[in-house]
Amino acid sequence: VDMRAELLLHTSEHAALQLLDAELEAMFSTWFDVAFLELRRLSWDSPASLIEKLIKYEAVHDIKSWADLKNRLDSDRRCYGFFHPRLPDEPLIFVEVAFMTEIASSITPLLDEGAVATDLSKANTAIFYSISNTQKGLRGVSFGDSLIKRVVETIHQEFPRIKTFATLSPIPGLRRWLQANLDEVMKACMQVQGRELRAQLKDGIDAASVLAWLDRGSREGMNDAMNQFILSAAAMYLGRSSEGDLPRDPVARFHLGNGARVERLNLSADPSPKGWNQSFGLMVNYLYDLKRLDTNRAQLGQGKIAISASISQLLKSVHA
Amino acid sequence: VDMRAELLLHTSEHAALQLLDAELEAMFSTWFDVAFLELRRLSWDSPASLIEKLIKYEAVHDIKSWADLKNRLDSDRRCYGFFHPRLPDEPLIFVEVAFMTEIASSITPLLDEGAVATDLSKANTAIFYSISNTQKGLRGVSFGDSLIKRVVETIHQEFPRIKTFATLSPIPGLRRWLQANLDEVMKACMQVQGRELRAQLKDGIDAASVLAWLDRGSREGMNDAMNQFILSAAAMYLGRSSEGDLPRDPVARFHLGNGARVERLNLSADPSPKGWNQSFGLMVNYLYDLKRLDTNRAQLGQGKIAISASISQLLKSVHA
Amino acid sequence: VDMRAELLLHTSEHAALQLLDAELEAMFSTWFDVAFLELRRLSWDSPASLIEKLIKYEAVHDIKSWADLKNRLDSDRRCYGFFHPRLPDEPLIFVEVAFMTEIASSITPLLDEGAVATDLSKANTAIFYSISNTQKGLRGVSFGDSLIKRVVETIHQEFPRIKTFATLSPIPGLRRWLQANLDEVMKACMQVQGRELRAQLKDGIDAASVLAWLDRGSREGMNDAMNQFILSAAAMYLGRSSEGDLPRDPVARFHLGNGARVERLNLSADPSPKGWNQSFGLMVNYLYDLKRLDTNRAQLGQGKIAISASISQLLKSVHA
Amino acid sequence: VDMRAELLLHTSEHAALQLLDAELEAMFSTWFDVAFLELRRLSWDSPASLIEKLIKYEAVHDIKSWADLKNRLDSDRRCYGFFHPRLPDEPLIFVEVAFMTEIASSITPLLDEGAVATDLSKANTAIFYSISNTQKGLRGVSFGDSLIKRVVETIHQEFPRIKTFATLSPIPGLRRWLQANLDEVMKACMQVQGRELRAQLKDGIDAASVLAWLDRGSREGMNDAMNQFILSAAAMYLGRSSEGDLPRDPVARFHLGNGARVERLNLSADPSPKGWNQSFGLMVNYLYDLKRLDTNRAQLGQGKIAISASISQLLKSVHA
Repeated sequence: VDMRAELLLHTSEHAALQLLDAELEAMFSTWFDVAFLELRRLSWDSPASLIEKLIKYEAVHDIKSWADLKNRLDSDRRCYGFFHPRLPDEPLIFVEVAFMTEIASSITPLLDEGAVATDLSKANTAIFYSISNTQKGLRGVSFGDSLIKRVVETIHQEFPRIKTFATLSPIPGLRRWLQANLDEVMKACMQVQGRELRAQLKDGIDAASVLAWLDRGSREGMNDAMNQFILSAAAMYLGRSSEGDLPRDPVARFHLGNGARVERLNLSADPSPKGWNQSFGLMVNYLYDLKRLDTNRAQLGQGKIAISASISQLLKSVHA
Repeated sequence: VDMRAELLLHTSEHAALQLLDAELEAMFSTWFDVAFLELRRLSWDSPASLIEKLIKYEAVHDIKSWADLKNRLDSDRRCYGFFHPRLPDEPLIFVEVAFMTEIASSITPLLDEGAVATDLSKANTAIFYSISNTQKGLRGVSFGDSLIKRVVETIHQEFPRIKTFATLSPIPGLRRWLQANLDEVMKACMQVQGRELRAQLKDGIDAASVLAWLDRGSREGMNDAMNQFILSAAAMYLGRSSEGDLPRDPVARFHLGNGARVERLNLSADPSPKGWNQSFGLMVNYLYDLKRLDTNRAQLGQGKIAISASISQLLKSVHA
Repeated sequence: VDMRAELLLHTSEHAALQLLDAELEAMFSTWFDVAFLELRRLSWDSPASLIEKLIKYEAVHDIKSWADLKNRLDSDRRCYGFFHPRLPDEPLIFVEVAFMTEIASSITPLLDEGAVATDLSKANTAIFYSISNTQKGLRGVSFGDSLIKRVVETIHQEFPRIKTFATLSPIPGLRRWLQANLDEVMKACMQVQGRELRAQLKDGIDAASVLAWLDRGSREGMNDAMNQFILSAAAMYLGRSSEGDLPRDPVARFHLGNGARVERLNLSADPSPKGWNQSFGLMVNYLYDLKRLDTNRAQLGQGKIAISASISQLLKSVHA
Repeated sequence: VDMRAELLLHTSEHAALQLLDAELEAMFSTWFDVAFLELRRLSWDSPASLIEKLIKYEAVHDIKSWADLKNRLDSDRRCYGFFHPRLPDEPLIFVEVAFMTEIASSITPLLDEGAVATDLSKANTAIFYSISNTQKGLRGVSFGDSLIKRVVETIHQEFPRIKTFATLSPIPGLRRWLQANLDEVMKACMQVQGRELRAQLKDGIDAASVLAWLDRGSREGMNDAMNQFILSAAAMYLGRSSEGDLPRDPVARFHLGNGARVERLNLSADPSPKGWNQSFGLMVNYLYDLKRLDTNRAQLGQGKIAISASISQLLKSVHA
């Protein structure tokens, strides 16, 4: 696996290596078939040498210290990973879950080391707030969908009261997409909030000016016009399939492909610089409704993205 | 055990509680008989929740961070604890060991997180540099001697090349003893280094002046006269049994009681404020010579403290 | 423990050893306090070297072969033992349980290797059909009551459908007691079945003749008069406290002392020679009604034995 | 795996199934790659449910009872198996080993339940006396060579005194081969022991007569002429490569393929009916000389079978 990770650094330059890479990927797909993998819980009672790897591998919200790590393994959290029997000390992928009493609307309290743990007897919602692949050498070998399904089953069995399963996810491609598709977005938003936009965007309505306007929100706080604009843009980005294609956002593609639906957009949900640079602080919940997963997936195959009523409302307003 | 810990806070005020305390101590001595305890190694592969307790309980050299802890569980270190089968998550006592190529003369490199680990194939010496009881409620129930014996056996079996077992120990009572016995010490030292002492101690040779003189060494560096003086005082403190009594120093009492001997005094071995306040930075090695333990212990019973040739030399000079 | 087992062979001859024995018993009572013991399930998945000991130690119904053993560890059986952490390979006591759909009335189907296992989804009754102490050296150290309580809790938690807990127990002292108390029993039974008894006992109504008459039942089958007589005798033996004393039968003393009640007498329940010699094939169920255990035990302290309505009926008829 | 086992019952009738079978075999070869398998020791301390499978699967020398099984797991024996992480309760192959002080010349003492165990401090030889594949559905997936190599390494590490590794193996194809190649064998043996053979084989020297003559040895004991004849035949069968082909005997093919050599023929080594029917009671030792394995294997590739000096001697005499 390490060898392939190194190999992948050179495949773009040496076309011949791509064949070898394809060969390895096929072999790894058999060797790391999810039927061979073990789902194991990672907790504060796990070996220090093992959970230390969570710090190393966490790809979504950096773990800053052992106190941060301990908070993510607190009594109201769960962390599960897939392991191969021959690599018992190396998680291949892991997911972090928080038990809550409602769907999370911000990452801040989840990462707050001083926050009081949710009372488990009251929790009814499981929030998947981070999922990380760890092995570059296993690129193309997919575990995430199985992991989420297995974790949902496991939690469901241990905590029958927990009935809502959702994510709190980043929208990594939003800014880039907005930049590339500004004309279309502007046109749609002008219909809804033309007056405000014109009042605020005196410097111009080209991509650079609009992004500069939004970034002012980072320093001075977002105003209503900014919020409205960014919600509309995100709804267009995540909720509208362009010509029957898959969603453009990689995280969306993953969860929608698993049968989840776009549930809710959350303003100021990730105040980190990374969160701002990706999506102006916006985060999204994908809802895993166990009874709808198959239907949603089938419809996705026909180009129809599953969205909630509130997202649908947002989209209708911009397409009026 | 926790109940007795709380009880012990009140026994001095309430004499009636002393009976209950004695009863508990007797019961705990049976329940926590070392024959029931398990020796377990604590390593970086142990549960985080378990080794976190090392941070909490370390009584000799504070563990300042997880990086510090990881260093103490590095490849050239060993940590062993005694556990009761009914308290599997709670070490009752633990000892920290470093594998080296010579007897340690300073605690600094042992606590240095950036230090390179000793090559295990070259190590021939095991240094016990910290031993901590964890349960206040088990006061009076003694595990330390068994722990050291079991650890020596365990290391001996796994690493036959390691033939020297010694401690690097604090001398917690040195300053207090010096203050109380200054006249005697001065008299002895005057014979050896009278001229230097008189030159340096112009402010007087009372306890306060002598200690002030020594403490200047902490700020400005120790000079030869200071070093000579403090070595002589420590040799008198540790190496001379007063009237057949046990050594006055609690740490000395423990190791000598196990059959070890006073091996070597090390100047500037503990530069921490605590080290200075206890013993002017001085630390001592006690040597566990497996073949001499029984003899040493027997002689201690007759009032004879086991000391090395170098300590003997120091003592002879001051008693000339 | 082995040493005391050997010691016990000689205490009757050497009175001095009785002091040592008492000392050991007191020490073992502390060391083997049930709070230190582990309840472990023994199953067909346990080490062969461990369950082999069930064959060796089974004291009630001999295990004749590995096939017999496997049957007693079948899917509708449970076997639990107490272990000391320092003797992990040695059960101190163990109990065998069968899951059934009614209270067992005969040991035969329970020991039948070819019997079909009870469907666990239908089982509502747990029958304790054998309980064996294993260590002669732990005589006087009592585990049985704790074991039964812990096993009842464990089963209750795993199988909420199982609501009836009872034993199928031997009556080891019945024949001996009958022999010693024949006059009293004859007198009582004559009131109920005088005519039949006189017709059958033509050879005399002394102890020898009556026992000979009953033993004919072993060869030729029990007739109604025999059955009626032996049921009455057993009800008197088990159900009537003589002068506030504890029950005379050792097994009864154990279960009644735990708070169980005498539930039902079962004719021809143990067809083995041992079963005949002890109690003419009769066995008894003691019922552990969790809600009544404390009350029953309290009343036993006042000389009142807990019995079911049917046993009460039997006793009334002979005391009319 | 079970599905393929069933499939294999029908592939001879239905050619179409052979394609599916080939597909499964290829898949299983990847899934059950020895790099994924765990070598585990099976002992009397293993779960009864697991070692019960040794009774079921033993393919060479039947295990007749639990006492027989216990003897094969005695202190001077070892049993190792390969397990797949996803089939932890199912050995895929296992080998039985006896520690001895010389190379075994008969299976009888090895299967004798009453035999005294070899003193481990004196053992210098490990005899592999049984190796069994367990899964019909894994036909064509080869584990045996890896198993033997791993077991040799494991024993070598734990018992450095053990330096000789050999088998005591059946010769399953000897009788059949003798029948088919009698002329050739007779011709060779006539040169050596013509007179004796002519005296004893008055009924004829056709295959039926010769086999009848040998089988008389089973009832009346083998005489010198029989012994000489059968040794010569076995040496020709095992030691001579016909035209560069692999040895005809399946067991020989396995061990020689691993790099072992034909070491010694043992008369009356297997007195069971099966042993007689296969090879007139003859058994053979294959020697695993760790330093020669690679050379032997390389030479086998060039059609040269590795044989000891004594086998070579036997062959020379018949080819004189």
